[in-house]
Amino acid sequence: MSLVRVQNFSISLDGFGTGEGQSREAHFGHAGDRLHEWMFGTRWWKPGGSGGIDNSFAQQFDAGIGAEIMGAGKFGHPGWHEDPEWKGAWGSNPPFHTPVFILTHHPRPSIEMDGGTTFHFVDASPAEALKAAREAAGDQDIRLGGGPTMIRDFLAAGLVDHMHLAVVPILLGRGVRLWDGLEGIEKDYQVEATASPSGVTHLTFTRTGV
Amino acid sequence: MSLVRVQNFSISLDGFGTGEGQSREAHFGHAGDRLHEWMFGTRWWKPGGSGGIDNSFAQQFDAGIGAEIMGAGKFGHPGWHEDPEWKGAWGSNPPFHTPVFILTHHPRPSIEMDGGTTFHFVDASPAEALKAAREAAGDQDIRLGGGPTMIRDFLAAGLVDHMHLAVVPILLGRGVRLWDGLEGIEKDYQVEATASPSGVTHLTFTRTGV
Repeated sequence: MSLVRVQNFSISLDGFGTGEGQSREAHFGHAGDRLHEWMFGTRWWKPGGSGGIDNSFAQQFDAGIGAEIMGAGKFGHPGWHEDPEWKGAWGSNPPFHTPVFILTHHPRPSIEMDGGTTFHFVDASPAEALKAAREAAGDQDIRLGGGPTMIRDFLAAGLVDHMHLAVVPILLGRGVRLWDGLEGIEKDYQVEATASPSGVTHLTFTRTGV
Repeated sequence: MSLVRVQNFSISLDGFGTGEGQSREAHFGHAGDRLHEWMFGTRWWKPGGSGGIDNSFAQQFDAGIGAEIMGAGKFGHPGWHEDPEWKGAWGSNPPFHTPVFILTHHPRPSIEMDGGTTFHFVDASPAEALKAAREAAGDQDIRLGGGPTMIRDFLAAGLVDHMHLAVVPILLGRGVRLWDGLEGIEKDYQVEATASPSGVTHLTFTRTGV
């Protein structure tokens, strides 16, 4: 059975997965790039980057993934669904290279991009979207791409098998929290923390007893 | 100059320093003992305990401390101020062994306990309480004992020099958060994370540039 995985999802010390004030120019609002600088420093991201613990985690982003599910807020700024030409902020060759299922209350026809990425738009529950993604992924795993709201919804529905979070030592103070309403979910997981010299702490949640 | 320090203050992954439903029987509400089990396993806490990284942090609780400041919610359950006999939940020889300044809107005469602890009750701002604690501590440091609300208030007032937090891999979901309203405070600190085999991550905030 393929796994449902979260990879490289970054949160602040106070638990925000994105800042406040998201816009077309500021995908993460007032957080800017601060949640992802650890990743930009890796060899996985750029030649000459570090090959240490941050890289070991980062490179699992693609490995064995056959489809992604993402929230509407990751696909675009608030209001993107009113722009019929909007195809995401990643250019003609997005970094997914698989089918991508976008959760939205405003579905539109699928868009085939370069490099193997196809965007599908689904107005569906987490379980329904997962069913579609599983069919598209075949034997491979499904990545939950974020934002925080969709990951929280999948966690609450008990649908996440593996989760990798990077906790960044900043306090955003405002934005969208990952953790709201998830009391006790650690009971279903083995939780492991690994501190990186970069200052980030990598947290992994691995489902137990299934 | 003596330092203002937080030692062994435990929070859940979702940032709660205490659970919901605090009472005389449940000092940390529905959190029970779960925030502090890492500490109970150390040599500092009991003979035969572990001598590893958790112990190294834990034993800094007393070292060089000349006074503590604590919030009313640590000194007792909600309503303790209506009980003229209440002397805290630590028995006749509390584990502080220094003057302790309790922030309360219901001050009462000081209480001298066994073992060097004296409880002083002050209706004061963080800065005012700190002034009194500094005088009592002499050359030694002042420990901020918690709970989360008073630590947050001291952080917001810029009065904390060193902070040691133990992040416990549980999700409490409800209670009192440490982090609310502290956007950007990391700018004033060097933040370091150390993962322990016990599952806890030790975070230290060390003030820079002062």
